[in-house]
Amino acid sequence: MNVWVAKIRVTLRPVVNDPAGLSIADALRQLGFGNVAAVRTGKYFEVELQADDRARAEEQADQMCRRLLVNPVVEDYRFTLARRSQRAAPRSTR
Amino acid sequence: MNVWVAKIRVTLRPVVNDPAGLSIADALRQLGFGNVAAVRTGKYFEVELQADDRARAEEQADQMCRRLLVNPVVEDYRFTLARRSQRAAPRSTR
Repeated sequence: MNVWVAKIRVTLRPVVNDPAGLSIADALRQLGFGNVAAVRTGKYFEVELQADDRARAEEQADQMCRRLLVNPVVEDYRFTLARRSQRAAPRSTR
Repeated sequence: MNVWVAKIRVTLRPVVNDPAGLSIADALRQLGFGNVAAVRTGKYFEVELQADDRARAEEQADQMCRRLLVNPVVEDYRFTLARRSQRAAPRSTR
């Protein structure tokens, strides 16, 4: 069983208003960043999961997004999947 | 002047407790995802900015993180930078 890390970005769909993003853009301009055109906010998750292979890990991460992490009415999501280095994997039995 | 998009991920530093991440991990397990080892939560920002070249855009995005978006005491950040396709750039003068 391998350990994988799904790095999941959840963003508001383009048609959805993002008042936090507008506030942050204003704040950045007031700080002197006059070159800011727009800011969109989102959420980020790193999920560590066990799965035999990449296909299974991908399917599981996708299901987690659909069933809990993402509201598909107003949000989009994308994720990348990386195999966890041995160092961080569960202790091996000797 | 080119338009760039900085995609910024802000995560809690590894030593910082993440109660939201623990709750999400529990919720996922209760939904049947028994293979979840850990969840860490973070924030995600897409900042659209104007800059002459990549080096300048990178410097600006880094400063925005340090001055507003990130609390360096408890958070880490990483960002990627992509040039915005012409389609989304400000209208050209004819």
